[in-house]
Amino acid sequence: MSIDKKQVRVGMIGYKFMGKAHSNAYRNLPFFFDSKVVPIMQSISGRDEAGVKEAAQKMGWASYETDWRELIERDDIDVIDIVTPNSTHFEMAIAAAEAGKHVICEKPLAMNVDQAKRMYNAVQKNGVIHMICHNYRFAPAVQFAKKLIEQGRIGKIRHIRGTYLQDAYLDPKSPITWRARKEITGSGVLGDIGSHSLDLARFLVGEFQEVVGMTETFVNQRPVETNSHIEQVENMQMEDVTVEDSAVIIARFENGAIGTFEATKLAGGNLNGNRFEINGEKGSIRWDLENLNNLEVYFADDEPGLRGYRTINCTETYHPYANVYWPVGHIIGYEHTFINLLSDFMNGIYEGISPKPNFEDGLRNQIVLDSIEKSVLQKSWVSVSENISRTIGRDLAISKN
Amino acid sequence: MSIDKKQVRVGMIGYKFMGKAHSNAYRNLPFFFDSKVVPIMQSISGRDEAGVKEAAQKMGWASYETDWRELIERDDIDVIDIVTPNSTHFEMAIAAAEAGKHVICEKPLAMNVDQAKRMYNAVQKNGVIHMICHNYRFAPAVQFAKKLIEQGRIGKIRHIRGTYLQDAYLDPKSPITWRARKEITGSGVLGDIGSHSLDLARFLVGEFQEVVGMTETFVNQRPVETNSHIEQVENMQMEDVTVEDSAVIIARFENGAIGTFEATKLAGGNLNGNRFEINGEKGSIRWDLENLNNLEVYFADDEPGLRGYRTINCTETYHPYANVYWPVGHIIGYEHTFINLLSDFMNGIYEGISPKPNFEDGLRNQIVLDSIEKSVLQKSWVSVSENISRTIGRDLAISKN
Amino acid sequence: MSIDKKQVRVGMIGYKFMGKAHSNAYRNLPFFFDSKVVPIMQSISGRDEAGVKEAAQKMGWASYETDWRELIERDDIDVIDIVTPNSTHFEMAIAAAEAGKHVICEKPLAMNVDQAKRMYNAVQKNGVIHMICHNYRFAPAVQFAKKLIEQGRIGKIRHIRGTYLQDAYLDPKSPITWRARKEITGSGVLGDIGSHSLDLARFLVGEFQEVVGMTETFVNQRPVETNSHIEQVENMQMEDVTVEDSAVIIARFENGAIGTFEATKLAGGNLNGNRFEINGEKGSIRWDLENLNNLEVYFADDEPGLRGYRTINCTETYHPYANVYWPVGHIIGYEHTFINLLSDFMNGIYEGISPKPNFEDGLRNQIVLDSIEKSVLQKSWVSVSENISRTIGRDLAISKN
Amino acid sequence: MSIDKKQVRVGMIGYKFMGKAHSNAYRNLPFFFDSKVVPIMQSISGRDEAGVKEAAQKMGWASYETDWRELIERDDIDVIDIVTPNSTHFEMAIAAAEAGKHVICEKPLAMNVDQAKRMYNAVQKNGVIHMICHNYRFAPAVQFAKKLIEQGRIGKIRHIRGTYLQDAYLDPKSPITWRARKEITGSGVLGDIGSHSLDLARFLVGEFQEVVGMTETFVNQRPVETNSHIEQVENMQMEDVTVEDSAVIIARFENGAIGTFEATKLAGGNLNGNRFEINGEKGSIRWDLENLNNLEVYFADDEPGLRGYRTINCTETYHPYANVYWPVGHIIGYEHTFINLLSDFMNGIYEGISPKPNFEDGLRNQIVLDSIEKSVLQKSWVSVSENISRTIGRDLAISKN
Repeated sequence: MSIDKKQVRVGMIGYKFMGKAHSNAYRNLPFFFDSKVVPIMQSISGRDEAGVKEAAQKMGWASYETDWRELIERDDIDVIDIVTPNSTHFEMAIAAAEAGKHVICEKPLAMNVDQAKRMYNAVQKNGVIHMICHNYRFAPAVQFAKKLIEQGRIGKIRHIRGTYLQDAYLDPKSPITWRARKEITGSGVLGDIGSHSLDLARFLVGEFQEVVGMTETFVNQRPVETNSHIEQVENMQMEDVTVEDSAVIIARFENGAIGTFEATKLAGGNLNGNRFEINGEKGSIRWDLENLNNLEVYFADDEPGLRGYRTINCTETYHPYANVYWPVGHIIGYEHTFINLLSDFMNGIYEGISPKPNFEDGLRNQIVLDSIEKSVLQKSWVSVSENISRTIGRDLAISKN
Repeated sequence: MSIDKKQVRVGMIGYKFMGKAHSNAYRNLPFFFDSKVVPIMQSISGRDEAGVKEAAQKMGWASYETDWRELIERDDIDVIDIVTPNSTHFEMAIAAAEAGKHVICEKPLAMNVDQAKRMYNAVQKNGVIHMICHNYRFAPAVQFAKKLIEQGRIGKIRHIRGTYLQDAYLDPKSPITWRARKEITGSGVLGDIGSHSLDLARFLVGEFQEVVGMTETFVNQRPVETNSHIEQVENMQMEDVTVEDSAVIIARFENGAIGTFEATKLAGGNLNGNRFEINGEKGSIRWDLENLNNLEVYFADDEPGLRGYRTINCTETYHPYANVYWPVGHIIGYEHTFINLLSDFMNGIYEGISPKPNFEDGLRNQIVLDSIEKSVLQKSWVSVSENISRTIGRDLAISKN
Repeated sequence: MSIDKKQVRVGMIGYKFMGKAHSNAYRNLPFFFDSKVVPIMQSISGRDEAGVKEAAQKMGWASYETDWRELIERDDIDVIDIVTPNSTHFEMAIAAAEAGKHVICEKPLAMNVDQAKRMYNAVQKNGVIHMICHNYRFAPAVQFAKKLIEQGRIGKIRHIRGTYLQDAYLDPKSPITWRARKEITGSGVLGDIGSHSLDLARFLVGEFQEVVGMTETFVNQRPVETNSHIEQVENMQMEDVTVEDSAVIIARFENGAIGTFEATKLAGGNLNGNRFEINGEKGSIRWDLENLNNLEVYFADDEPGLRGYRTINCTETYHPYANVYWPVGHIIGYEHTFINLLSDFMNGIYEGISPKPNFEDGLRNQIVLDSIEKSVLQKSWVSVSENISRTIGRDLAISKN
Repeated sequence: MSIDKKQVRVGMIGYKFMGKAHSNAYRNLPFFFDSKVVPIMQSISGRDEAGVKEAAQKMGWASYETDWRELIERDDIDVIDIVTPNSTHFEMAIAAAEAGKHVICEKPLAMNVDQAKRMYNAVQKNGVIHMICHNYRFAPAVQFAKKLIEQGRIGKIRHIRGTYLQDAYLDPKSPITWRARKEITGSGVLGDIGSHSLDLARFLVGEFQEVVGMTETFVNQRPVETNSHIEQVENMQMEDVTVEDSAVIIARFENGAIGTFEATKLAGGNLNGNRFEINGEKGSIRWDLENLNNLEVYFADDEPGLRGYRTINCTETYHPYANVYWPVGHIIGYEHTFINLLSDFMNGIYEGISPKPNFEDGLRNQIVLDSIEKSVLQKSWVSVSENISRTIGRDLAISKN
């Protein structure tokens, strides 16, 4: 079986939840897509040799490394994929870019705007292709929403309400993870899940102009995980939670739209409530990740008496990616958002253009996050636009979404 | 047919939408409830004699007046019900209280905090029973939510997200009404529909501590209504809209909960989206006015694997008011919230206690509205608690919800 | 207050659940509708004097009788409304018709086809206006569905699936009622709730051609209700249930459509699940009584990619009855279906035409029920068309729905 | 990378829709599951060399054949997977069994009961492992439903209503396929989609006792597909549809439960409506393939006032297969049902036991289908139990579901 397509050899740093999602996507990309560039799962790296070896075998990587710097230095690697905790992205991405590798990085891009700016500069300067994994843009229903908005079907946008509601932290006995440690994660729910909502808002509505937010840490201690089964909260060794577990935000966009946003891991009954509703002059759209194949659409100019939200199962041939997968009505799942994203990345490598969302989007997202955090600290409105001008400059500020 | 119950003779000022809703409730109260006091529909007043005469006949009022002052002065009136535009509440309520009449008033209570404070003082000083018509507290599902919260079934509350989304203003050709004129209405969507969300938050979560909001007037001119059929926007006589048509708010409550709120009349596809979700330490509740008989409830301590929001149709004998109406599963509508509210008002008159929500709630709601408006003007957080202390004083500030 | 409208004086036989629903509708009809004939709540009858006296006072009837024959004989009564158990409809309706009174009767019309035929003959012969209370036809969403079908928006109908699912009998300790006694009720869930589904099918799809059904009595004994609180099933006095508590049916319609129907009171989690979905060549509609204000509509000729069921809240000015009640999005409840039905009845009296559904519909429905029961007994398909020809005759068979 | 697991080498016959679904499942099985036997994608066969070669490359098969008999004869093939049209299953499965290959076959098993019986005999006689691809049993929510039923949480089952509603045939210009040709497909919607509903009923409720059905072919001609774009129905070359496009059924089960079933491809607005609701003495469950991760569950013994269907997203660690895939709330799609099914098949091969659903289930399903078709032809009830006794015999009839 000969393949006459261009191949790129991928090296991935990290192998936990996101490592599994990315590996699955690399493995399945050629099965579903006819992308002009095909990824080869060349190597992964992790510090624990036993763990990384087992992961490599299980997930289909041809080899492994225990030092990510060695992975980057390998000549037989074209792309570096970074799926490690947030505090490590900066060093890895810059090293990869400087080694001339294409870079794809999990979100949030960095620990702060300064890091993100330097990462962006590095990929720009080294001319490598770059992308950030805001995978929810790649749900077919979200892509279809984008298309409807671009076609003007919703009209000028006035409102967005975006929430990312989970309840994973509701149980106070649930052990602490790196996501609750500020030195590793940077921020709490803001960067972890809120950043997805904010990215969807940038994608679908436009650039943020100003924000004011409030955060809270309702559960400020969590047990340290041990091997023994945890039963008695009293006897647990506890560790301080050093980031927020809840955040609420109101925002104005440069195009005049206004919005509310919320991210929390304490909303009981919401397993993965990444949701938005957008209202424009001519219509509205609604989406919910827990039922990600559907898009609800309302048209104000539907026949009077017959107006109402339509529930559209985005698996018809008219919908993005639908022809790639299964016949109408046969739904896809969470993991397929990554396959779709990677197909854009592969095409980007072929064409020499960094697809959106790329490091610039990551940087812009980081500026929004940074502005929200400032607004919390200062208890005041903060101008995102000024933050962007200051960071990126007038000229670059023109390229958007 | 003799009735040996105490009767109160009601005089109502105004007879449009709210006049119809109140009249219907007075008429039906004795049919459904065994309240100890029965309302007699004695008289209504309106400036237009032909209109008020027809309304009296249609809606079952025994007589009518064209001057509300004369209505209040009549000896055969025990209760004054105010359903006129906001700018008139102040004068009418104070006159009614000073005439020794019990007073029930539509929301928002007044044009501003100063008016509301003086109205509250007037009913207190004159010892009359008073109530404000935040009727959505009286949906059986909302009362049931309150009961669950009071029983601790939801645990300490952390989050509320309240929206009141309508799309009545989406059509730019829809004529202007008094609700778009600041001198008559005081505020726009904030007072009109947002005040309901804020009242539900006070009822179910507790007192507001601080708020920051943003408002917008997306449609800032509207055609003046004429008798001719409107087709051409270009030829219409236009009038400026002088209040906001959209508002977004984030808030902290005195008990530590945080929340987001939104009120808009430009959310296409949302006819009457008065909705809230509340998340506590032990569970969550959700409600939607468009499907008002249902309450969705989540319990974190349900059996693992069987946790999920339950959809509860609040028409079983275990639910508030259910025995008053129809057998299980036979739903009630919007209008019944007013009947339930009036039954509390009648019982309050019998017992000599002003039921909640009363003018104090109206005043407190006005203070929240005022704080939001200040925060919009100042582009800053505003302390509701300080506003309450300043207005009501430390002692009165103790009585809550 | 003078009323220059024609008045009809109503005498109602019975005063329990349906008596309450009808009384409420008579009371509220003039408040909402400008019908040319206004009902006067003249008198009700019931065998228990204390009970009927209290009911008269509570529900607003001017007088009462303890013998329904005397009610019918009164000169000051124009209309007889029959809301008693099924076994009594026959004698009462015929007596009323022979006394020249207009007759409105609860469903099912009679105990069997023979009774129904004679009742129909009696109203025809005596030239009185007649109607049967299949009130669910009068939900605005159902009327709107009818209109869409008549306009050809759904196209030629191919499918209906109608269910009426309740769970009131799920608790085996729930006491027996007259509805479980064959000599009083005729049939079980078939006549009680199934008849509503079958009537909606006749209304929206057309006449039945043939049916085959199966019934079951899963709970065949129930406790007799006593005054003492029931706790121990073992100690209860039990009575045999002599009618079916579940029924399933498949059917073909004269226009070629096919359908499934089910009625049960043992479907846990379904409080009042009167639902249907209809699929035609050009579209589909869905309705659910538990959310009766909504109609879901699908158009096959919607723009490709944007096809999906629309959720239409039938409270806009374009929807039937919407202007009678409340502004858009303010929902009505179960009881309003009766008000709407009575407005048609009053208009029928004014115009001298028996509105649909009338006794002919009641007879036709009885023939469908009879055919299903025969099919159960014979374990075979039964021709409804032949049953209708035999009962009504060729000529009358022409007037349909 | 050495793998010390047992491997089985798979040969698949066919490579269209089902071929893609199976290939995807073979490819992904080792990624998600730690099954003791690992499938090797050895070879596929198809008559068109260009097509099968391309499919082999695209889907990851190591080689291809153009004659399925040669595939079966190959020594390096352990398992034959049959994903071809129904009319071919018989010959292929028997040949595979006689060659000593394990066999997995798409549904329906055969064209009729006689074929199915002989296929069943063949796999039994040759001692090979066998399975039929009723993949919807393997949705985690369906497996969880099975578990709840087995635990007695729903109680004795009384009702099932199962529908499989699609709208793929609604457009009369949609070209004819092999599924509309009786000589290739055997039956229409009954075997194609109805068989899934009937299998789920056997899985969750039990064995059928008797059935009566009705079928219809509403669209009895369809255009022959050509390369030119189809616009004018008049000019199309038309072909007769020789199987039913709609079917309705009522049924009784051996355990006393009763049910309704419907399969149609003309239900506009239903893309893939494989749904069921089951009601038992103690509770109810509901499922919908279009939202396949959710199970709705009702418990009659929930606290009074708090009873209602719970929406359970079956992605928690407590749910079947949940630990195999993604964290809580990250949904899976249609394709994963095949991966789950294959993991059972692989384990069955390891343990030497044919997992359910196997060819016996296929045969039993075929007997139900056959009984329905007989009931349609005879216009009468048909005993499934007698059909089973006659076909399988008393002894074998004991092994069920």
